[in-house]
Amino acid sequence: MTFNRKSIRVIACDVFGTTVDWYTGVAEQAVEVFHDLGITLDAAAFAAEWRGRYLPSMRRVRDGERGWAYLDTLHRESLDDLLELHGVAGAVDDAARRRLVQAWHRLPAWPDAVDGLARLRGRYTVAALSNGGFALLTNLVKAAGLPFDCVVSAELARTYKPDARVYRTAAALLDVAPAEVLMVAAHGWDIDGARDAGLRTAFLERPQEKGPAGGADRATDSTSDLATSSFTGLADILGC
Amino acid sequence: MTFNRKSIRVIACDVFGTTVDWYTGVAEQAVEVFHDLGITLDAAAFAAEWRGRYLPSMRRVRDGERGWAYLDTLHRESLDDLLELHGVAGAVDDAARRRLVQAWHRLPAWPDAVDGLARLRGRYTVAALSNGGFALLTNLVKAAGLPFDCVVSAELARTYKPDARVYRTAAALLDVAPAEVLMVAAHGWDIDGARDAGLRTAFLERPQEKGPAGGADRATDSTSDLATSSFTGLADILGC
Repeated sequence: MTFNRKSIRVIACDVFGTTVDWYTGVAEQAVEVFHDLGITLDAAAFAAEWRGRYLPSMRRVRDGERGWAYLDTLHRESLDDLLELHGVAGAVDDAARRRLVQAWHRLPAWPDAVDGLARLRGRYTVAALSNGGFALLTNLVKAAGLPFDCVVSAELARTYKPDARVYRTAAALLDVAPAEVLMVAAHGWDIDGARDAGLRTAFLERPQEKGPAGGADRATDSTSDLATSSFTGLADILGC
Repeated sequence: MTFNRKSIRVIACDVFGTTVDWYTGVAEQAVEVFHDLGITLDAAAFAAEWRGRYLPSMRRVRDGERGWAYLDTLHRESLDDLLELHGVAGAVDDAARRRLVQAWHRLPAWPDAVDGLARLRGRYTVAALSNGGFALLTNLVKAAGLPFDCVVSAELARTYKPDARVYRTAAALLDVAPAEVLMVAAHGWDIDGARDAGLRTAFLERPQEKGPAGGADRATDSTSDLATSSFTGLADILGC
């Protein structure tokens, strides 16, 4: 099936890694918390380890191994495990753990995101579509000044991407067919899930997503309708 | 209980009548449709009659007399009845009826809305909270350039205001207590519903809501924490 940009009505954008830089944002906030507590832990490595537990924690919800749980809850559980693993559980009180979980609510936008989204918004309905909770996403989008038309959270489907129900819930809420939605994501698993749910896909490469050591997903890892490396690049491709 | 503005974290705003002028907007679009069809009907009176069927149609969903139905569906059913009543059903084809239902997706903001909401947004999370569907609201907010942080629709609770579940769903999605939400509305029934659900309330009077003949709800019809006549006035009261 050839990609036809005229068939697209909604652009749905993944958030963590695709629109905002979680690695830098979480590491910077963790540095402060660890400093305040007098703990010597590599905050950037800690952020990456924490994120490493993201997909497995959501898989247990998707697979029905456990009931619905908010991303904040999953982040907290992963955090508790990691602090134990690093032998610092006794040094990090509940208030500090809450601060760390809240770090995911306030992350810097990638430099191209605000301009690119604003251009796309001139022609399309542009939605955030993330596994973050509705409140988390609303806070994050507001703090980073991201010009989305609306926030759609996996919470509204009470499961997580890449479950097809999340992508289809977004299309249904916006009253369009799945094939009228272009999913923009920096992760192969998200692109694959969107494609399987009937959406069109744009792989947006973020080589620095996991920090300078690399390891980020690449467009060649997956099959997508379009590939780009910024939201402004996507706006160029779509003639916005 | 005394009102304390510091206890508020979210401002939830009704849309039809409170934030946008449905009377003028629907009448102007109906004039065009009726003109194109060669029908002589008073479009402004028609808009008011149509809106008159709004609350009864939603009540049947709230009361469980019928299952969940989108506002677009309720608008279409009311429209079909009204066209029959006015003896013009045969002259208005399906495409024209769709255009009329879509009129509710594109309505002008009241003159104070964009400025007032932008000021409120500097201090609070500002959400649209309406009986309009999620797609309808997203379209409407985008077309009118309303600076909401997020769109929350009664659709997400699959019932309609003033059912308490709608107000509580909004608070839950935004991860705040009901008492941390200030509901802003131009209708006594909405203020009453929000108060009964545990929200704080601001009555925003729109004397022209139903056109120059009057008949709009007034602040004295209900009991609210605050009363004002514009979003900029509300921003003044809240010190934004």
